[in-house]
Order: sequence, then structure tokens, then C-alpha cells
Amino acid sequence: MIEVRAAQAGDGALLMLTTKELGSSHGWGADMTAQASDFERDLFCDAPIIGALLAFVDGAFAGSALWHRSYATSRGQELMYLEDVVVLKEFRRLGVAEALLKQVAKTAVNHGYRKVFWLMMEWNSNARRLYEKLGAEIENGNCYCSLHDQALLDLAK
Amino acid sequence: MIEVRAAQAGDGALLMLTTKELGSSHGWGADMTAQASDFERDLFCDAPIIGALLAFVDGAFAGSALWHRSYATSRGQELMYLEDVVVLKEFRRLGVAEALLKQVAKTAVNHGYRKVFWLMMEWNSNARRLYEKLGAEIENGNCYCSLHDQALLDLAK
Repeated sequence: MIEVRAAQAGDGALLMLTTKELGSSHGWGADMTAQASDFERDLFCDAPIIGALLAFVDGAFAGSALWHRSYATSRGQELMYLEDVVVLKEFRRLGVAEALLKQVAKTAVNHGYRKVFWLMMEWNSNARRLYEKLGAEIENGNCYCSLHDQALLDLAK
Repeated sequence: MIEVRAAQAGDGALLMLTTKELGSSHGWGADMTAQASDFERDLFCDAPIIGALLAFVDGAFAGSALWHRSYATSRGQELMYLEDVVVLKEFRRLGVAEALLKQVAKTAVNHGYRKVFWLMMEWNSNARRLYEKLGAEIENGNCYCSLHDQALLDLAK
């Protein structure tokens, strides 16, 4: 029995469980500085730019999706960027990711967004199968570019 | 003489010039529904999620950068997503993109962001050269995934 609901005050500690799982699979190491209080602050401030959904299997926390408001220049309107979908290891292959994505779509429609987008690594064939089954369009050949920390400070000089 | 400044009320019409140029190079066609009033509304509302920079060459509008607030789960803090950097055709190869990116970096630092990220197509070797020169890290092998319009409504059912 899978249930998905929007984040509530106090969920920061649960979101840290999926964030840590994500961090260990991505090898973030010391760059993983998020705290439960960060999520509490940013989810429940006056004009939040992020939202989160939590999934439970038979009442046990099993996974989460974190999204943020984004913007389509072509349409002059907001859309949704899906930052992470994480399922805890012991709850894989039960349909949790699909249940989260379905609720992501509902949340997007409820906000009046006409589009959700996200990134995936080209080698991730399991994710690709799921996303295509759910109707997503997938465009290969993108690069993720970033300027951070010292390189960002240097350019800003 | 290149000058870059933050968007001001009334700049929507200039931003439409770069948005149209972007739309024609991306083949957006009918999907390109943005209006100057959309940018005016979204740049100057109470808690905007977007920002824009405008570049001028000897006083003539030459290009723009549009960014929005984004979020790093790993850090539990906001960062900047750079949505578009556009230089009008007649002002290319003058250093306008570099001047815009430098101001993007300054803007990010002023907001307290430690990272800016954006997407690039793998085949875009001119952009890659510029980004690497400016200190960016570039990761190949990403896919851009999206659910939009009818496919989004179908999944939300």
C-alpha cells in the first residue's frame, strides 16, 4: 500500500534520509551540507520556491520527490523543475517512484504548470524505461555546466 | 563599449527581442507564447523567482541573460539556474556573452549563491570554449526529460 502526500512541518528529518541516500549514491561527500532545518525553513517560508512529496509503504517512509519553481522563457510562465526523486533501497521495485511521479504531475497541474522537466544521466536505462512509460520526452546530448565556489568568485571579481 | 545592467521596469519589450531570437534558433514556433507583459509581471512581482540582465553595445540593446532561483538539495540552499544567454546576431563576437556571464556571476555572489548551473547541447563547441575559459565545469551525458501539455494531464489523472 503506497501513499504519497505533500511535505508537512516536521518532515525535514525524513527528507534528510532520502537526501543522504542520494548523497551516498552521487558521492557528494563533504559537499553534502544540508540539514533538516534547511528543508523546514525553505519549504515553509512565506513564498517558497521548493516543494516536496513524501511516499510511504504500509506507513513506513519509503522515498521523496523534491521540486522547485522554474521558468519557461518561451512561454513567459512558470513551470516545475523536478530536482530529485529518491526511493530508499529497501523499498525499490514496489512502484514508489511511479507513485511519486504521478503525484508530481498532479501537483504541477494543480499549480497551473503546463510542463515539468528534469535531468537524467544517459546511462540510466531503468529510469529511462519508467519515464518513457509515463509519457516523458527525453532528449540526449545535453551537458550540465556549473560555476561554483572559487571559480564563481573568480569570475565575479 | 559593452555595458550590462539588471532589468528595469519597461524592459519587457527588449527581452522579447532576445526571446524571439532564441525562439527562431530553437524552432519553437507556435510554442513561443511569451509576451513583454509576462516578463514585466514576473520580474517585478513581490517575490520574483526570475531575474534578467541586459547588455548594451554603445548604447544599443545587444543581448540578455535570464536566470531563476533554483535549489541544491545537497546543500539545503538556493542557487542560480541560468536559463538563457542570448546575443542578437548583429552583436556577436564582440564579447557580449562573456560580459553577461561575468555579471551573472556577480549577481549570484551578491545573492549569496555559491553555484550557478545551466545546460548546453554537447555539439555547441563555441559555447563550450567560452564556458571553459570562464572556469565552468562541464559534464556530458545528460538527458533533458520533460512531461508537458497532454502527457502531463494524462499522468495527473
